[in-house]
Amino acid sequence: MTIKVIISGPRGRMGREALDMIINDKDLELVACIDRMNDGKRLSDVEGMPNVNVPIFVEPNQCFQSVSADIFLELSIPEVGFDHTKLALMSKIKSVVGTSGFTSEQIDLLTNIANENKVGCIIAPNFAIGAVLMMQFAKKAATYFSDVEIIEKHHDQKLDAPSGTAVKTAKMIQESRQAKRQGHPNEKETMDGARGADTEGIRIHSVRLPGLVAHQEVILGGLGQTLTITHDSYNRKSFMTGIKYALGKVMQLEKLVYGMENVMD
Amino acid sequence: MTIKVIISGPRGRMGREALDMIINDKDLELVACIDRMNDGKRLSDVEGMPNVNVPIFVEPNQCFQSVSADIFLELSIPEVGFDHTKLALMSKIKSVVGTSGFTSEQIDLLTNIANENKVGCIIAPNFAIGAVLMMQFAKKAATYFSDVEIIEKHHDQKLDAPSGTAVKTAKMIQESRQAKRQGHPNEKETMDGARGADTEGIRIHSVRLPGLVAHQEVILGGLGQTLTITHDSYNRKSFMTGIKYALGKVMQLEKLVYGMENVMD
Amino acid sequence: MTIKVIISGPRGRMGREALDMIINDKDLELVACIDRMNDGKRLSDVEGMPNVNVPIFVEPNQCFQSVSADIFLELSIPEVGFDHTKLALMSKIKSVVGTSGFTSEQIDLLTNIANENKVGCIIAPNFAIGAVLMMQFAKKAATYFSDVEIIEKHHDQKLDAPSGTAVKTAKMIQESRQAKRQGHPNEKETMDGARGADTEGIRIHSVRLPGLVAHQEVILGGLGQTLTITHDSYNRKSFMTGIKYALGKVMQLEKLVYGMENVMD
Amino acid sequence: MTIKVIISGPRGRMGREALDMIINDKDLELVACIDRMNDGKRLSDVEGMPNVNVPIFVEPNQCFQSVSADIFLELSIPEVGFDHTKLALMSKIKSVVGTSGFTSEQIDLLTNIANENKVGCIIAPNFAIGAVLMMQFAKKAATYFSDVEIIEKHHDQKLDAPSGTAVKTAKMIQESRQAKRQGHPNEKETMDGARGADTEGIRIHSVRLPGLVAHQEVILGGLGQTLTITHDSYNRKSFMTGIKYALGKVMQLEKLVYGMENVMD
Repeated sequence: MTIKVIISGPRGRMGREALDMIINDKDLELVACIDRMNDGKRLSDVEGMPNVNVPIFVEPNQCFQSVSADIFLELSIPEVGFDHTKLALMSKIKSVVGTSGFTSEQIDLLTNIANENKVGCIIAPNFAIGAVLMMQFAKKAATYFSDVEIIEKHHDQKLDAPSGTAVKTAKMIQESRQAKRQGHPNEKETMDGARGADTEGIRIHSVRLPGLVAHQEVILGGLGQTLTITHDSYNRKSFMTGIKYALGKVMQLEKLVYGMENVMD
Repeated sequence: MTIKVIISGPRGRMGREALDMIINDKDLELVACIDRMNDGKRLSDVEGMPNVNVPIFVEPNQCFQSVSADIFLELSIPEVGFDHTKLALMSKIKSVVGTSGFTSEQIDLLTNIANENKVGCIIAPNFAIGAVLMMQFAKKAATYFSDVEIIEKHHDQKLDAPSGTAVKTAKMIQESRQAKRQGHPNEKETMDGARGADTEGIRIHSVRLPGLVAHQEVILGGLGQTLTITHDSYNRKSFMTGIKYALGKVMQLEKLVYGMENVMD
Repeated sequence: MTIKVIISGPRGRMGREALDMIINDKDLELVACIDRMNDGKRLSDVEGMPNVNVPIFVEPNQCFQSVSADIFLELSIPEVGFDHTKLALMSKIKSVVGTSGFTSEQIDLLTNIANENKVGCIIAPNFAIGAVLMMQFAKKAATYFSDVEIIEKHHDQKLDAPSGTAVKTAKMIQESRQAKRQGHPNEKETMDGARGADTEGIRIHSVRLPGLVAHQEVILGGLGQTLTITHDSYNRKSFMTGIKYALGKVMQLEKLVYGMENVMD
Repeated sequence: MTIKVIISGPRGRMGREALDMIINDKDLELVACIDRMNDGKRLSDVEGMPNVNVPIFVEPNQCFQSVSADIFLELSIPEVGFDHTKLALMSKIKSVVGTSGFTSEQIDLLTNIANENKVGCIIAPNFAIGAVLMMQFAKKAATYFSDVEIIEKHHDQKLDAPSGTAVKTAKMIQESRQAKRQGHPNEKETMDGARGADTEGIRIHSVRLPGLVAHQEVILGGLGQTLTITHDSYNRKSFMTGIKYALGKVMQLEKLVYGMENVMD
C-alpha cells in the first residue's frame, strides 16, 4: 500500500525536486498539489511540470476535503505554510513541513493541535539527515576520543567562515566532553591562523575553493588511531533523503516533533 | 583519587604499552605486576622496564592479598589468564581482560563468579574502540542510507582479503537494512572483480599496498550526498584508548560484560 | 588586451556553459556565434541566451569574413564542426575544437591546413584537464613507487566498471614501470572480487553509490608512506577550466595539436 | 649483478633501517660498514646487528682500499661524514650522503672533487621522495588551477605550525602562479583563524591530533572539480624509498647533485 501525499509549493526549488522524488518512489503516491497559481488545472497540463494527472488547488481546505491523503508535505513559504499546516492538522492529515520560518508561538500552536488530535507532524528547518548523523556520531565519538578538529570545505562564493554546521558540530561535541586545550602546550603559530579557529579547544578550519560544493570532516584522534566522519553534499537532491525519511517516520507519530535530529534515533 | 591497577603480562607487547599508558596517566596508578619471571623483584630493578618501584609476583593470590588494588588488568596469555581472573574476581577485585582465547565454559564460569559477587569485569577479544564506533555508526547510518560500500586498506603483507573487520562491518550493517542489490540493475564488469566482493548487496574492496597500516572507510550514499566513516589505525598504541576506557567503565559495573561493543553506549 | 572568440554551438550543453565562462572572464571577449538557428539575430534577442549584443550567423564563412576574431571555438556537432574548422583555419583564425568525432583522415587534413598556414589549432576529445594531470602525475610517481591501486567512484547509474579513465590511468602507469604482481605472493580472496580487477598487477576498484558524481583516487605505496592523487569532478563546469586553458594555449601555437595531454607540459 | 654498498653509521636510526633495506634487496649487496666502534669485528658478531658476515672499519681509507664497492652510503654525523665522503670520492667510489649539516664551503669542495673525478655523488638533506613529488605535482597543477589550499596534519607533540613542508610547498606553488587573493572578496571570519594562515593568497591549515603521524593534502580547485595531492608518512621507513632511489640514480651520475628534487626528473 502506498502513502498518499499532497504537496504544497510544487513550483519552488525544493518542491520541484520533491515532486520528482515522490513520483519515482514506488512507496509514495502524489494525489494533489496546493499552489497559488494554476487553480483547477491538472498538474500534467502545466508547462514544465511532470506528466501526472492530479488536481491543483489554491484553497487548502477544498483540497483536504475533496482528496483522500495520508500526508501533507508543505514546501512553499512560511507566510502561507502556517495556515496550510494548521488546516491539514485540523483535518487530521499528518504533516511534514520544511521551514525555519515559523515563530515559536506558531510552533506551540501547531504542537497543541497535533498533540490534541493525535496527528503526527514533523517540522524541519533543514532535511539534511547526513549532516545530522555526522553531528550525532561526532558527539558520541568524542566521549571516547577527546581530541577533535573540524575541517569544513565550501565553494569560494561562501561569505562566512566557519560554516554554521561546523559551529553547531563543535557545540554538540562540547556537550559530551569537558573543555580541553588541544595540541602541545607550547605549540606556536609561526603564521597567524595556521591552527584555525578555536572554540573551547576544538579547532575549526575553513577551506574555500572553486569546484567544491559543501563538505565537512570531523577528525577525532586517540593514541595510535583516528576516526573521521565525513559528509559530502553535492546538490539540493541531498534534502530528498531527509524528506523521504520524514514521510515514513511521520506515519508512526501521533504528535508534533520539531527538528530532524529528534526523529532520528 | 586515582584508580589502582595490577597488571599481568607486563613484558608482552600489549602489556608493555599498557605499563607506559598507566604510568603516564594521572588518573591511574600502577600498584603491582604479575609475571611468571622476576618474582619478588621490584619492577624498577628489571632491565627494560619502567622505573616504577612496585612489586612483582608470580603467585596471583599472594599479589591480590598483599596489595590493595581497584582493578586487575590481565594481558598475559589465556592459559594462565583464566586462573588469574577467577582468583581476582573471587578476591572481589574488578577485572579487565584482553583475550579472545577463553572457551564459552570459561566465560560462563567467570560470569557467574562476577555476577554473584557483584564485581565488575570486562572481557574484550579486542580493545579497538575506534573500529567498534565505526561499525556502530555505519549500522545506524544504514537505516537512513541504504546503499553502502566498504573499502579496507592494509599493508601488503596481509594474507586474507577482505579483512575480518570489513566482513563484520557488513554483517552489522545487514542487521539494519534489508538485503538489496546495489548499483545499476544492468551494470557490467568489463574486468572481473572491479565491483569488489558482494555480500548481500554490500560491496567490499580490499587494497593492499606497502606503506599502509590498517584503514577502513564505510561509504554510505543517498540522493545528492555521501556520508563516510573512516578508521585509521597507525600502530599498537591504538588499543590503549580502549584499555583506558575499559578501566574507567569497569569501575561502574557490578557484573561481567563480554565485548567492548557492549560497554560502549 | 582581450582575446576575441567566436563560438559555434551556443545552445548545446557545453556551448551554453562556455558562453557563460567567456562572458564572465575579463581576458576573453565574445564577438559572434555560429548557430544553425537564429541567423541574423543578436544573441541578446534569443530567449534563454545571455544578454550580450553580438551577431549570430548560420554561414561560417560570412561570420569569419565580417567579424574580427582571434579564436574560433567549435562546440557543436562533428558533422558540421569539421567544415567550420576547415574554413576557420583557411581564414587564419586559430581554432579550439571539442570533439571525439572526427575521422583520422579529417584530422590529417586539418593538420595540413593548420601547419601549412602556421595557424594554431587544438582538437580535444575531452577537456578534463584535472583527469589528464592525475594520469600524468600517477605515471611519474610510479617510477618511484612501484605499487599502485586505483579506486574510482561513480553514481550508481553508471553501467560499466571499471571506468574508462581508470583503465587509461592503469595503462599510462604501466608505461613507467615493469609488470609486477602486487600484494603478498600467498594472498587469498576469501570472497571473490575483494582484491578488485587485476590489470598487469595494478588493482582497480569500482565503487557505485547514489550521491557520487565522478571521482578517482590513485594510491601509490612505498615503505612507510603513501602518495595519493585524487580527482573529483562535480559537474559539467569542470570542462570549462580545460577550454579556458586551451584558448590561452592556442594563442602560442602555429600548428595543430591533438589531445589536451599534448598541450599540457 | 648487484650494487655493492659500504654503509657508514650502521648503528644510527637511519643507518639501522638502511642496513635492513639493503640486506633484503636482491639488487643491493652490503660489503662493509664504517663505524667508530667495533673496529675489526664482523657485523654478525655485534649484538643487535643483522647476521651478515661483513667487516667493520673505523678508518675509512682502510675500508675503501681493502673492499671493492660501488657506492659509499654516508648516514653517520656531519662532523665525520664530510671526511668520509671526501675520501670516498677521492677513491672514486660513488657516494650517497644523507645530511643537512654540511656548510656551503664543504659542499663546494665535494662538488669539485666529484666533478673533476667524474664520480657520481648525491647529497640529500632529506630522502622523502613522496614529499618532493607532492610539491612538484602541486606546482605543476597550479599552472592550471590557480586556487590552492594546503592542509597539513601532524601528531599533537609538534610545536610549530604550519609545518616546514607546508611552507615550502606554498613557496613552490607561488613560483608557478601570480599572487592571488583567494575566496570571496567579501568573505568574513566570524571566528579568528578559521580561514587559516595566508601566504600570498594560499591558505595553510594545521591540524594537530594524537594518533596522526605526518600528512599533507594540497587541494587545487577549478570550475566544477578539485585535484588533491596527498602524502601520508607513517614512519621512518619512508626514507628508505628515497635512499634506494638515490643508490640507483647515483650509478648513472658523473658529478655531484645536491637535493633529491634535482635527481628526480
